[in-house]
Amino acid sequence: MSRRPLIGVMGAGEGASSAAIQLAEELGAAITERCWALLSGGRPEGVMAAVSRGACSVEGHLVVGVLPGDGRDHDRQQTAELDLALFTGMGQARNLINVLSADVVVVCGAGGAGTASEAAHAIKAERPLVLLAVPPLWQEFFCSLSAAVQCTDAVADCCSHIEALLPQD
Amino acid sequence: MSRRPLIGVMGAGEGASSAAIQLAEELGAAITERCWALLSGGRPEGVMAAVSRGACSVEGHLVVGVLPGDGRDHDRQQTAELDLALFTGMGQARNLINVLSADVVVVCGAGGAGTASEAAHAIKAERPLVLLAVPPLWQEFFCSLSAAVQCTDAVADCCSHIEALLPQD
Amino acid sequence: MSRRPLIGVMGAGEGASSAAIQLAEELGAAITERCWALLSGGRPEGVMAAVSRGACSVEGHLVVGVLPGDGRDHDRQQTAELDLALFTGMGQARNLINVLSADVVVVCGAGGAGTASEAAHAIKAERPLVLLAVPPLWQEFFCSLSAAVQCTDAVADCCSHIEALLPQD
Amino acid sequence: MSRRPLIGVMGAGEGASSAAIQLAEELGAAITERCWALLSGGRPEGVMAAVSRGACSVEGHLVVGVLPGDGRDHDRQQTAELDLALFTGMGQARNLINVLSADVVVVCGAGGAGTASEAAHAIKAERPLVLLAVPPLWQEFFCSLSAAVQCTDAVADCCSHIEALLPQD
Repeated sequence: MSRRPLIGVMGAGEGASSAAIQLAEELGAAITERCWALLSGGRPEGVMAAVSRGACSVEGHLVVGVLPGDGRDHDRQQTAELDLALFTGMGQARNLINVLSADVVVVCGAGGAGTASEAAHAIKAERPLVLLAVPPLWQEFFCSLSAAVQCTDAVADCCSHIEALLPQD
Repeated sequence: MSRRPLIGVMGAGEGASSAAIQLAEELGAAITERCWALLSGGRPEGVMAAVSRGACSVEGHLVVGVLPGDGRDHDRQQTAELDLALFTGMGQARNLINVLSADVVVVCGAGGAGTASEAAHAIKAERPLVLLAVPPLWQEFFCSLSAAVQCTDAVADCCSHIEALLPQD
Repeated sequence: MSRRPLIGVMGAGEGASSAAIQLAEELGAAITERCWALLSGGRPEGVMAAVSRGACSVEGHLVVGVLPGDGRDHDRQQTAELDLALFTGMGQARNLINVLSADVVVVCGAGGAGTASEAAHAIKAERPLVLLAVPPLWQEFFCSLSAAVQCTDAVADCCSHIEALLPQD
Repeated sequence: MSRRPLIGVMGAGEGASSAAIQLAEELGAAITERCWALLSGGRPEGVMAAVSRGACSVEGHLVVGVLPGDGRDHDRQQTAELDLALFTGMGQARNLINVLSADVVVVCGAGGAGTASEAAHAIKAERPLVLLAVPPLWQEFFCSLSAAVQCTDAVADCCSHIEALLPQD
């Protein structure tokens, strides 16, 4: 059995720009088209919601959300676009699980401090990291932490980077 | 989109009895047959391996492992029977994630202290818990912690309990 | 510099019996008298509160609470009897930190499922475990998981067990 | 009983500069002089070791380390400069505990990706954050995430910031 590569996409929740949301939706669709599985923070807003929605718009999707809540009723009702919802009950510590589980991590658009923590954890854990359409300051900062970080502004190019970064069997 | 119910199956790793392993394999197959997804601790041994193997023996499986390791190379190579491998880097704390994420938790066969912690966390978190073919002392102990715990010795009966315990839409 | 031994005391929160609360208070005082530091779940109720109160009643105490909450204002106000409050934001996963951090773990009185998870984690992690005044069923269950578990009904005897179980320099 | 403020100091491990190490040692001493308790990542290297050493050089210290390991023998032997060693067994997820537990978080000197994750988590969790002698790019990046971040190059000034940022009773 050969497992589908798992692509982690991180980005802003509430404060996401409409440009980031559009890119995330496009990226999600591209992920499913390539038969990759998608992993995100799973909450129903911003980049997380958009990338899941995009991935679900193509047949054959596998969309996983790793959530901060403990899965009580309210949590469970808010996960419509997920094929699998994992509840950690660990708040922001779930950011680290996202990063460790992904074969490649993508940061999509300008995010807040939560997204920044995920990019930093990805570098610390030596997970391949692609920055998609992030501000120049984000590029400069994270590239200063690791020479291996990839940057791009286009979804097609991002997918080429992912492809090149996936572990070879 | 309607998500597949997620059944968490917990049990012994290295020390699992052959009876527990056979039951786990049978239970895994029954889970996929009912179009449920399977969640386990994901390591390649004992009940975890057997339930995944059983689930994978039926078409349409969705088998998730939530692992203690941080997903470095060695970890990744040991997850052959998983459709999805989530790496937590959190050791035994991943037991709690398994329990919180499952719609119903099943303990299969006599387990060790790790399995006992999962049964206890399930009760604490008020997740439905079914004990399948556990020793009388386990039944007595966990039923003393919660009147809602179900006990059975047969896979078919276990699946009926799961069915009755699944959240209704 | 020689570090003070750290004794973890676990037990019921809200549902603690008055016998367990009295024992916990006595045990806390005995811990400080022996120049040990105390670690508990830190919440202001039941055995956690009582053992901290007891430890603080003797001069020279060092009382640590490892809390499930994330340390927002409300959490911080509820930790009056702690010399140190550690906020994990990880809910029940903090139980595991308590157990791993303690040099010896004591379960005081009949607890609920949360306490049971801590006893199970202690055994799994091979931390020395003393059961103080727990019901026969608890004794029987946890002793079936590990032959190293110690049981007693008296605080003085519990402290002798702790002393014997402390790591030797 | 009034609890001592807990100051979290984060910085590079192995790759710390000698300037950062000297500042950390000075900061540690200043923290104990003010009767504050110190919290760090606790490992015996770089900024973590230096700040603990500094704090221990003044009488009345309370030095806490929150460690990534699970407290097996090897871990325990490496914590000479700690009054309290908390073992999480959660790897980098312990970074979040450090941040949530501190009343004020200080980043000391240029750090790596682990330190960056801690600064990001501090902002996300709305913990007061002081950047001490970090590179201009770090200042610019973290100040772009939150207007509340304080920057300074001197230990005395850092302590004034901490004092002003401590929760008022």
